[in-house]
Amino acid sequence: MDVRACLFDVFGTVVDWRTSVSREFAALAHKKGITGVDPVEFAVEWRKLYHPSMEEVRSGRRPFVLLDVLHRESLMQLVARYALQNLSEGDIDHLNRAWHRLDPWPDAVAGLTRLKRKFIIAPCSNGNIALMVDMAKRAGLPWDCILGAEIAHAYKPAPETYLASCRALALAPANVLMVAAHNHDLKAAKSTGLATAFVARPREHGHGQTTDLEADRSSVDIAAKNFVDLAAQLGA
Amino acid sequence: MDVRACLFDVFGTVVDWRTSVSREFAALAHKKGITGVDPVEFAVEWRKLYHPSMEEVRSGRRPFVLLDVLHRESLMQLVARYALQNLSEGDIDHLNRAWHRLDPWPDAVAGLTRLKRKFIIAPCSNGNIALMVDMAKRAGLPWDCILGAEIAHAYKPAPETYLASCRALALAPANVLMVAAHNHDLKAAKSTGLATAFVARPREHGHGQTTDLEADRSSVDIAAKNFVDLAAQLGA
Repeated sequence: MDVRACLFDVFGTVVDWRTSVSREFAALAHKKGITGVDPVEFAVEWRKLYHPSMEEVRSGRRPFVLLDVLHRESLMQLVARYALQNLSEGDIDHLNRAWHRLDPWPDAVAGLTRLKRKFIIAPCSNGNIALMVDMAKRAGLPWDCILGAEIAHAYKPAPETYLASCRALALAPANVLMVAAHNHDLKAAKSTGLATAFVARPREHGHGQTTDLEADRSSVDIAAKNFVDLAAQLGA
Repeated sequence: MDVRACLFDVFGTVVDWRTSVSREFAALAHKKGITGVDPVEFAVEWRKLYHPSMEEVRSGRRPFVLLDVLHRESLMQLVARYALQNLSEGDIDHLNRAWHRLDPWPDAVAGLTRLKRKFIIAPCSNGNIALMVDMAKRAGLPWDCILGAEIAHAYKPAPETYLASCRALALAPANVLMVAAHNHDLKAAKSTGLATAFVARPREHGHGQTTDLEADRSSVDIAAKNFVDLAAQLGA
């Protein structure tokens, strides 16, 4: 492998969306007197609408729109389903931007900081640029640039998302390492010609997680325990 | 002014292209035994082809292509004009990437580092993403993300270059400050609704520079001596 750049899945791989979105919902619910909705369940239900919302774009049924827009549409479904009252447009916007305020896993900043010394590092996420920039500034993620769905106008696992990100760096896919905690993401990246690294995030879905506990060796070049371990394995 | 993000012109404003490209040409000329070509003249002549090459795209006569491509085409014109011999494709590519290896003005990194604490900072340059990333890693420019011509598919001073960069941050133009050493860039940004800051770079064109020595107050909100002064004026 001659890796020049590392691209990262973000939701679940770099940051802990489940805990962070739960916390944001709980804070707003407390402020607004909303009771009877479990914050973790709310976060999980919101996330369940993530892939179906993108599938509208991936299938070609809908032109590309930013993830902030899809997140907000999904949120409005949940507001209706849970019959949430007393939320202003400002409250909805604030809650929607919970995805801009996700906390990193404990090893993420230290690992990225090491990797950045040797490689170009960038998100290759389905999140849009504003979301990724806000998150990075809050969490201290030291990206060199923001790549992914918005510059590609395509959502992973569409090959174009990975390919557009490689082209933006003027690098061949073989010189780019895709890092993710999700085997389906890495399978798509591998099929597109990228090198792949699996980083286990066994608590992404809480205790009792049954998926993505181990790398699928058929599409994964490197398996790492966390980002610091990944940096060590790559000599960074 | 309610500034949330600072966008920067790069060539001439953040980095000293004239000295850096001259140095790169001189090094290659020495290695290849090329004599009789003044390195500074070569850099200046290369830069003179910059705006005409982009004008082909701005006018609509040519689809958008990256600045790396335009730089290389201009370089090939100079190779022919100066009848440079013995340059391989690899030599040409290396020299073309001189624009990826430009040195920052002495105050640039310190000023950007301060500005980053308070604002989103990003280039809004005509340079492509790979060029900006390579330059930033070498020079230590702490960008939050890379915006500008490549994401806009338009070259400044086209309004779309500024507007696409603001949209990528989900910010209104009025909340974005364009920083440049060139009044024509700031005039275009101002017309597009951005706030503007002029930073004097009186040696960009060497001793005896006659243009852009002072801010054109009709389109400039803030005039600063350098990036550290700009940070101070903005309370960063």
